[in-house]
Formats: sequence, structure tokens, C-alpha cells
Amino acid sequence: MSEAASSLAAGSVGTVETQYLDLPEPVRLDCGLKLHPVRIAYETYGTLSPRRDNVILVCHALSGDAHAAGFAKTPPEEGTRDGFGAEDRDGTARKGLGWWDGMIGPGKAFDTDRFYVISTNLLGGCRGTTGPSSTDPATGRPYGSDFPVITVADMVRTERAFLDVLGIERLAAVAGGSLGGMQALEWAVSYPCQVDAIIPIASTHALHPQGVAWNAIAREAILRDPDWQDGHYYGTGRKPDAGMGVGRMVGHITYLSAQALDEKFGRRLQFADDLRYTITEPEFEVESYLRHQAESFVKRFDANTYLYTSRALTYFDLARQHGGSLGTALRDVSARTLLIAFSSDWLYPPSASRDIAAALDALGKPVECHVIEAPYGHDCFLLEEARQTPIIRRFLAAGPAAG
Amino acid sequence: MSEAASSLAAGSVGTVETQYLDLPEPVRLDCGLKLHPVRIAYETYGTLSPRRDNVILVCHALSGDAHAAGFAKTPPEEGTRDGFGAEDRDGTARKGLGWWDGMIGPGKAFDTDRFYVISTNLLGGCRGTTGPSSTDPATGRPYGSDFPVITVADMVRTERAFLDVLGIERLAAVAGGSLGGMQALEWAVSYPCQVDAIIPIASTHALHPQGVAWNAIAREAILRDPDWQDGHYYGTGRKPDAGMGVGRMVGHITYLSAQALDEKFGRRLQFADDLRYTITEPEFEVESYLRHQAESFVKRFDANTYLYTSRALTYFDLARQHGGSLGTALRDVSARTLLIAFSSDWLYPPSASRDIAAALDALGKPVECHVIEAPYGHDCFLLEEARQTPIIRRFLAAGPAAG
Repeated sequence: MSEAASSLAAGSVGTVETQYLDLPEPVRLDCGLKLHPVRIAYETYGTLSPRRDNVILVCHALSGDAHAAGFAKTPPEEGTRDGFGAEDRDGTARKGLGWWDGMIGPGKAFDTDRFYVISTNLLGGCRGTTGPSSTDPATGRPYGSDFPVITVADMVRTERAFLDVLGIERLAAVAGGSLGGMQALEWAVSYPCQVDAIIPIASTHALHPQGVAWNAIAREAILRDPDWQDGHYYGTGRKPDAGMGVGRMVGHITYLSAQALDEKFGRRLQFADDLRYTITEPEFEVESYLRHQAESFVKRFDANTYLYTSRALTYFDLARQHGGSLGTALRDVSARTLLIAFSSDWLYPPSASRDIAAALDALGKPVECHVIEAPYGHDCFLLEEARQTPIIRRFLAAGPAAG
Repeated sequence: MSEAASSLAAGSVGTVETQYLDLPEPVRLDCGLKLHPVRIAYETYGTLSPRRDNVILVCHALSGDAHAAGFAKTPPEEGTRDGFGAEDRDGTARKGLGWWDGMIGPGKAFDTDRFYVISTNLLGGCRGTTGPSSTDPATGRPYGSDFPVITVADMVRTERAFLDVLGIERLAAVAGGSLGGMQALEWAVSYPCQVDAIIPIASTHALHPQGVAWNAIAREAILRDPDWQDGHYYGTGRKPDAGMGVGRMVGHITYLSAQALDEKFGRRLQFADDLRYTITEPEFEVESYLRHQAESFVKRFDANTYLYTSRALTYFDLARQHGGSLGTALRDVSARTLLIAFSSDWLYPPSASRDIAAALDALGKPVECHVIEAPYGHDCFLLEEARQTPIIRRFLAAGPAAG
């Protein structure tokens, strides 16, 4: 089928139900501890080939979950999903559509007519996979802040163990944006013989210091909320919504470009044409929007998962994990690599993708790096589906699993 | 004296004591209320000329105070002054030196051999001028959140009333960075016949939406802290240090450039060479730095003043205040204008200064706009003294009060 025809045929994966799987063995963690039991929430789209060679693992970002595509069989309550960083442009979240529905399906970037796409909720998550809100077998109560501090490598080790149970040895590709892209990179490094291709989008080999700072501030907002209660807020009737709301606001602004905020809100006032002279109520539309984002986020997300996931993504540093050199870290990579970055993304700037491309190129590894000119900042990886699609389809078509 | 010789001769204004003055009349506010009594904290440097024509008013930014230059007669306690956004590079704050000491003094940018420099703590402040922590005459208790919401024009109206009491009709110049630059602009617009020159540095005619958002987030962090107690925390033994600390962290990162953070901290770990696997303690140097900044700030600053001042600077919008047109707003300006901006300042970007320059130029008004290439972000207006000095000295030397 030609590109044009397949684009026209792009469709939905339909209604999807999240599934759950318990790992048979404890997961060994970088901190030295072992975690057991571990349950994985996941969804699959498309059909596994008889040779099990058409699997694409899709990894989500900080606030995502396993529901990447299609309509949720049990749609979420109104307002409990807000598009995972991207605004809810057309009611996507309200309809229960997955966070990357525009990218996964028949004829789409991750073409379910060809590939068997698997999406898991990451280790430490709060949407079905074991995390801080899960029951600690040692106490019978939720882990809270007793949950071990995890890394991106731990997430990937968990995904590897999960795929083992499914009987899937090799992956045709691992793809993801932001923290999802870090997982894709870690897959290529940790399991070099088991990954044919990786597609890290709007991602990095190590978050820059300003990004580390923004994440630290968001976590501080949670830690300083008295309702956090040292991480043991479950069952107390109080949770750190105030602090996590502030953290989400910080995150949200870092996901957007200044230009996007200009175009969307300008300096328009929220009410009438003049100031109301208030310090407690929103005056500008952008202030009102931030409150809305915070409110809808705290309804669906667990603050401890935010802390742990944010921590993991600031830790991620391929060079540091491999003696200080990015080249050394990538030495054994055998996966073909497709990097996509966005010109206006100042949280995960194109320079990071270019650094990775240069390091792979210097090692003689096959790599492509595309910087898409787009104004929406980091959120582009969720918004610019149409422009990512041909790049990804062409890249995947060149692989051994191409049908 | 030549520039070179005067630079060599640059010295200190010596020991300075903050003075206080009570305005005789109520101050009329934009919100419709009147405020009385109003006390002004101020300092002066240099000597008033017999013709009272050598006065420069220096206006401070969000977290500043009247102590702009020299050594405080009563030095602050250790850790209670941290450089007002700029880091404490060389112990400046510990020595009790003013926040713009590098710019004000004999032979400096604002040359006290020539000019009589006056610096006031702004209306709503917490360092001697009447603000939310002052006593409300209606109740005998601190105003708290009953303090009226103020604007930059209110601050300037108050400064005008204060100078009236000192018998000073005309200003040779009004200068300031950031919010201080907004006051300088407002002076030229509100009192066009009483200002010979203005020097808005790293400032804007209207903060862009991303800046509005950052300010809103910092205020949210305070408002959501239960210790804020609806703004009436004075005398309760609890104050919203946790929330204001987060707000300060947000502010601090917006004052610096990503490059400055790279150069200063990189991704260096705080302790030893490896991760400690903690979500509650700093792992990276930049995380530790943020906590330190928050701690030292809450010791010296009042959270309500932060709320009111942040609100005022987001309200400021010369075009909106004058029917939607910057040209209309600036129509009656007679002051010569010197705009200085910094290439890496993404909170008050050079484009805002250029917009003002273009609007003044289109009206045939005398204006200069200098964009200094410097890597430290918004904080440059406090750090790049050496490069601002010749520009400012040359500009002031061209004025009628020169000589």
C-alpha cells in the first residue's frame, strides 16, 4: 500500500481493555533492592505475527499510562484524563481515547496492520502497574515513600521481564517521547541484541540542569505540602493535591513554548475588559488555564508516582551510567535509531537528540535525526502526529520486520 | 574627568542609614481605594544640588528594598539578604552592601559625585514602606490580604507624593531593572513633564504570557500553603515559608539562563560520585542550591508582599492602560529613554525593549536601545555592572543636568 493510500486508510484500533500481568520473579533494582510482587498494566493493538517478530513496545512519559490508543472499554470519568501534557484539543480525553491514538492504529505511524504494539504502564506508575500506591507485602499497607527509588533502567528491566512472560524475545522497535524516549534509549543499551530499532522522540540522554531544576521544584511543591504526610497519605482522607497542582503547573509551562502561550492566551483577561484587583482569583486566561490543568491532573494522578517518576527521569544519564562517556554507553547498540526532536522544545531541546546522533554516528551505527520545526514546545510529541507519521513509517518500513 | 579615569576612581558611598518618611495625604489607588497612612523607607546617596536638578530615582525589582548602595549602618543578620535574585558572588550581601552597589557611587554608572540618587522601598513592600505587613488603622492589626491590590502606577504615584514632600519637582532620571524598569516607564508616561530621562533595564511594557504564568505559579505556591491562612498569618507563629520557598525557586530559575545553570552546576551530584536513591533529599548540586535560595529568601521577605508585588508586575501593560496602543501610551513622553536588555534574558527578553524603542522612535522621541550579549539571563541587570556602566554614564552625560 502506498503512503498516501495508507494514510487515507488510517483508522482506530477500536475499543481496548487494559490487561494485567503479574511477574513471576522479583525485579532487581539499581538501588540494590528487589521488588516483588510486580504487576504490569498493559494494552496491545494489532496482531502478533507467528514468528513474534513484529512487536513494537511503546513507552509513556511522566504522566501517562498503558492506554495509548483506541477507546477505553471503561471510559474514564469526566475530567479524569486531560491529555497527558497536551491540552484536550478536541475532546480526545473525554472520549476515552489513548494518549497516542493519533500515532497507533491501522495505517498510522505505528501501523497495527503490520505491527503488534504493546503499551505498558511503567514501574512506579499509578494506573495499574506496581508503584508507591500499591500494597507493600511487608506491611499490608500502601508503600508510600517506602517504595524503593527507581531508575529508567529499572523500568526497562521490568518491561523486559514482562515481555519474557509474553514469550516475546525480540522487539522490532521501542518508541516513546520524553521519559518514554529515555526508556527506548535504555532498551538499546541494556538489551542490544534484542532490539531492532528505537525511536526516542523529544528525549535526551541526560536532562540538562534547568530541566533537573524544574523537576526538583515540582517535587518540592509536593514534599512541602503537609498533606503529603511523609509519603504516607493513603487512607488518611488527605492527599497533597495542592502541592501536586503547583508541580503540574510548573511542568505544564515547561511543556509549552513561550510562543505557544502567546498564541493561545496572549495577555487576555479572564473576565470582562478590566482588572478585578484580586490576588486570590485568576485575572488572566492563562492563570485560569493553569488552575484547570492542576485540578484535572490531581483527580487522576498519584503524587508519589509523580515524585518517583520525576526522580527517575532526572537520574537518567547514559554517560554517567557508563563511566562518563556517551560513546562508551552506546558502544554495543545494534538497534537502528530514529531520533525526532522539535525546534521549540526547550525542556528536551534538539541539541540533545543531535548529541546522541553524533555519538552513534561516530561509532558507525545507523542513525537518523529529524528536527521538526513546530511552535508548541515539548508537547509537540503528542500534538505533531501528522508530521512524525511519514518519518516513522519510512523508518520502520526499512527494517527487517517490514511486511 | 575621562571615562577611564572616573572608572578607576569609582568608590563606595560609604555607610548608609535607611530613612523613613510619612506621606501627609492619602495615596489614591487604581482600584478606587485610598491608602493612609503611608510610610516610605528610602536612602539617598550624593548631594542634592542647590537647584534640585540632579536627582535620580532608583526603583527596585520584586524582592528588593531601599538599600541600593553602600554599607548598611545596621548590617543584616547572616543569611537574611541574598543578593535579590543574583547570587551572592563575593559576600556582597553578607557585608550589608546594597543590591546595586556596583552601579551607584562616586565614578559609577549613577555617579554620586554628580547626581543625588534616591532609592525607595516600593509601595506594598516589607522593608519599611507601607505594605501588607503594616498595621491597618481600621483594625489595629496587620493588613494581610486586606491590603488593597496595587499597581505599578500606584507605586509611581506614591513615589511622586514622596518626592513632593522632599521638595523635589523634577527628576534628572528614573532608573531600574525588571519591575524597577516598569516604574521608570510609568514615570515617563504618568509625569511626562517632570522626568528628563528614564533608564528601564531588562524590563518590558507588558510581561509576556509565559512570564504571567510563572508569576501565577509562584503565587499559587503561597496561596495553597495552609500557613498562608487567607493572608492573615501575622502573629500566628506560622507563615507560608514552604509555599514562598517554592515560589522563590520558580522565580530563581526564570532569572537565570539555561546556559548559566549548565556552566554553574552541570549535572554534578551533591554528594560523592553516585546516586543515593532518595526522593526527599537533594541529589544534584542545583537541587541543593534551590533549597538554599528558598531558605535564605523566606528569612528576609514577606509572602504577602511577594503576592502583591508579583500581581502588580503582571498587571502592568502600558498599551492596555491606554486604550490598547503602545504608541498612544507613549504619546506624551518627553523623557529621553535609554533601554538596556540582555541577550539571554528569557523572562524579560530583548524583544520587549526593542518594541518600546520602536514605538518611541515612531513618535520621534529620543531613544537608545542596547542589547548586551551576556549569558546570565535576567539576573544580568544585577551582575553585568561593568558593561552597563559606560552606556549609562554616556547617556546621562548627554542630559541637561550633566556637568
